[in-house]
Amino acid sequence: MSIPATMTAIDAEAPGGPEVLVPVTRPVPGLGSEEVLVRVAAAGVNRPDVLQRMGLYPMPPGAPTIPGLEIAGTVAAVGEAVGRWRPGDRVCALVAGGGYADYCVAPAGQCLPVPDGMAMTDAAGLPETWFTVWSNVVTRGHARAGETMLVHGGTSGIGVTAIQLGKVLGLTVIVTAGSAEKCAAALALGASAAIDYKTQDFVEEVARLTAKRGVDLVLDMVGGDYLPRNLRCLAEDGRHVSIAFQRGGKAEVDIARIMGKRLTLTGSMLRPRGLAFKAAIAETLEGAIWPEYESGRLQPVTDRVFPLAEAAEAHRRMEAGQHIGKIILSLGT
Amino acid sequence: MSIPATMTAIDAEAPGGPEVLVPVTRPVPGLGSEEVLVRVAAAGVNRPDVLQRMGLYPMPPGAPTIPGLEIAGTVAAVGEAVGRWRPGDRVCALVAGGGYADYCVAPAGQCLPVPDGMAMTDAAGLPETWFTVWSNVVTRGHARAGETMLVHGGTSGIGVTAIQLGKVLGLTVIVTAGSAEKCAAALALGASAAIDYKTQDFVEEVARLTAKRGVDLVLDMVGGDYLPRNLRCLAEDGRHVSIAFQRGGKAEVDIARIMGKRLTLTGSMLRPRGLAFKAAIAETLEGAIWPEYESGRLQPVTDRVFPLAEAAEAHRRMEAGQHIGKIILSLGT
Repeated sequence: MSIPATMTAIDAEAPGGPEVLVPVTRPVPGLGSEEVLVRVAAAGVNRPDVLQRMGLYPMPPGAPTIPGLEIAGTVAAVGEAVGRWRPGDRVCALVAGGGYADYCVAPAGQCLPVPDGMAMTDAAGLPETWFTVWSNVVTRGHARAGETMLVHGGTSGIGVTAIQLGKVLGLTVIVTAGSAEKCAAALALGASAAIDYKTQDFVEEVARLTAKRGVDLVLDMVGGDYLPRNLRCLAEDGRHVSIAFQRGGKAEVDIARIMGKRLTLTGSMLRPRGLAFKAAIAETLEGAIWPEYESGRLQPVTDRVFPLAEAAEAHRRMEAGQHIGKIILSLGT
Repeated sequence: MSIPATMTAIDAEAPGGPEVLVPVTRPVPGLGSEEVLVRVAAAGVNRPDVLQRMGLYPMPPGAPTIPGLEIAGTVAAVGEAVGRWRPGDRVCALVAGGGYADYCVAPAGQCLPVPDGMAMTDAAGLPETWFTVWSNVVTRGHARAGETMLVHGGTSGIGVTAIQLGKVLGLTVIVTAGSAEKCAAALALGASAAIDYKTQDFVEEVARLTAKRGVDLVLDMVGGDYLPRNLRCLAEDGRHVSIAFQRGGKAEVDIARIMGKRLTLTGSMLRPRGLAFKAAIAETLEGAIWPEYESGRLQPVTDRVFPLAEAAEAHRRMEAGQHIGKIILSLGT
């Protein structure tokens, strides 16, 4: 496979609205000894891409300016210390950025095989949400079979993945969503209950749904005034895991409630974590989750696929918040 | 040993200042099958006793109105299912209340032997702070050898116990205290550093003392505006454990900091926990901590001993905040 010196990518000319995302010509990235160069077939769109485009996301040092945190494609070349992957392998990968491009480098440990029978445009949407949900719900949140979890945004990429994780682990998953249509979609995907937050008070609904016991875990990307309301949804020994704060980074907590119910508040960011951490999650996902896609028990939930050149349109769709599942960019390869 | 029908105790006539603590005559409490009746020799005074006297402490259902959460004395009688203890044994115990009295019942599992060679007036001050500090720093806070812990109120009963736990576990303990004299006392007890919060900013001092790394654990009983400042003292993967909130039960948290450093906030109340939990802690303390007192490596830190009849004076001393270590009531038996 011959690798060109330059490639087409999408990058932001300057921080701003979706229109700043324009095609650019860039050098094909160089390959480290433990990295894989992927000919990108599809890239997932994630909320941090939108924040990054607006200039609101703290970029880890050394990350490419080109957005895109997850890709699927074909291995084009491998670094000298890479044992597992060979040119021609179909992989999907969590990357530090640079996914909106013809070629992207990925640490070998962050690549997973594309599940058998899955389209590249579906596989590109798996890594970011699965690494995030697994590392926060299982690794930090200690979710166990039989427990109940509340997830906001039940039809977002994170929400859909959390519902699917619940299926695999044996969790009861309660979600919130912003319309009757989204609530119906979440239920169809396997949520045990879906609360329309525009017409119902989720704190009251969770109390009702759990016979006042509360949930064992909240996976939260809302923050702000949701956080104290989330704490009111937690049962004794409940855990609250923050992965974003769309309604604000400051929140008030009730210390007496934390003490009285022995609650735990924690959270994490995936992007700055080290390679070893991400490689361990990749290995776990390949063992615990990928077979569920291969058997058909889980199905990828892809909202819409846009050509790479229409990345701005894809961002507009994410910002409009009407999507159900993942928004994907296709390179048509 | 003959047990009278009635006894002298100290109880609050009505919620109020120290003067409401007056001697009363009460029936000697009845004994359950898994309980021990103790002829009280001494009782520890704790901050929840002060809050309870003021009417500000939520009383667990069934708890005696007589204050006093820890005692030392001689076993006077045992319930029919009690195997370990016999009349005449010298014990100290964590109790649900009722310690300010000639007789007090304790669950058998919450009794520990008085360490060899220790006075009753010293042993009475061990249970409440040790059960609290162990269950929060070790069980909830996961403190490990080599870690660094920040504790406010380094010369309070909790502070002294936290310093001593640090010695046993191999923790570096940084404390805050409100005077040069208290800082000197904390250092003499084994704290690695003591910050005078009246003249120094503890956030800046912790940064300096840890070369900006931060501490692994904060044991906090202050709450309010201290909580966000405590979070600024935490290193990556740091834990914040709340056991009280003397400056207020509402606090603001910075979600980006929690996520970016993967912090954990938690807390607990000892008093409402079940017997099995407390019995497990008692067993652990007897194995891990009591031998340290018997060998002389740890010494009890008793501030002052008051006769039971002067309980009001003992409360005044605690409220004045000038004590170093435990305030104890003696029954002179």
